[in-house]
Amino acid sequence: MDLKSLIRDIPDFPKKGIIFKDITPILGNKDAFRQVIDTFADRYKDKGVEYIVGVEARGFIFASALALRLNVGFVPVRKPKKLPWATHRVEYELEYGTDALEIHQDAVPKGSKVVLLDDLLATGGTTAATLKLLQKLDAKVIETAFVIELGFLKGREKLKDCPVYAMIRL
Amino acid sequence: MDLKSLIRDIPDFPKKGIIFKDITPILGNKDAFRQVIDTFADRYKDKGVEYIVGVEARGFIFASALALRLNVGFVPVRKPKKLPWATHRVEYELEYGTDALEIHQDAVPKGSKVVLLDDLLATGGTTAATLKLLQKLDAKVIETAFVIELGFLKGREKLKDCPVYAMIRL
Repeated sequence: MDLKSLIRDIPDFPKKGIIFKDITPILGNKDAFRQVIDTFADRYKDKGVEYIVGVEARGFIFASALALRLNVGFVPVRKPKKLPWATHRVEYELEYGTDALEIHQDAVPKGSKVVLLDDLLATGGTTAATLKLLQKLDAKVIETAFVIELGFLKGREKLKDCPVYAMIRL
Repeated sequence: MDLKSLIRDIPDFPKKGIIFKDITPILGNKDAFRQVIDTFADRYKDKGVEYIVGVEARGFIFASALALRLNVGFVPVRKPKKLPWATHRVEYELEYGTDALEIHQDAVPKGSKVVLLDDLLATGGTTAATLKLLQKLDAKVIETAFVIELGFLKGREKLKDCPVYAMIRL
């Protein structure tokens, strides 16, 4: 199935000049959704992965499904004050101001092999922040994976310390 | 596996007097996570379900995994201004003020059989709002399902028009 045909361009969302890549048509199509998860699963099934890490909120959708498919644990990374137990926190810069992400301090045992899976690689800011969180837990990140990479934003250059895989490059 | 033993009580979160039910230990435990999804899948596998609907953000985790497991589509319900295409919107009351939820107008074809799956049934406000959204789409809601129901909050009484299933009642 041609996944690209199920990505819907939304002009000027969330603000003028940005063309948003809407992946909800992929999610709603059972064959497309399964194809995405199967492709990731085939890639990681023999790598000894123990956890899939997903970032709030769209990242949860793919990461939890992949965790189930590989029969490994799922770890959520969330916006500040959403995770209820003791957390590590990393701040990162946005176009205007800063934001932050958190992970539970007991999310994975030291040395755990994890894959970080998100829907979109844009500027790479949230992914770089999440990799710092995983570093605080002494996790071994096998790879960061994305359904879509917006190559022209060069987010990959922010992630030089970690292998990067993108299923669809736009 | 005793799932209750993996639910962590967090006192005074997100505010004083509330005991938050932390389900991240279930997610991180591959056997527990699979058991949760398998239990839902067994319940719905012969019901002709076509879509699983999940509510941002924790609800995405279980709903997308169940959609994959049943090989059906996944539909996200989100906070305002997060879904990029044309949406339906429903407002609902909080303790102080109001909030709103949205669904894409083309999320499911009319008459589609869906299950609404969320992590927690508390007061039932967000679930009741989501059912109104699904009504706008003329979806047929087979059941609303939850990993945990806080029975003392009587959220079930807000959902009288729809069957309700809770895996764990606390």
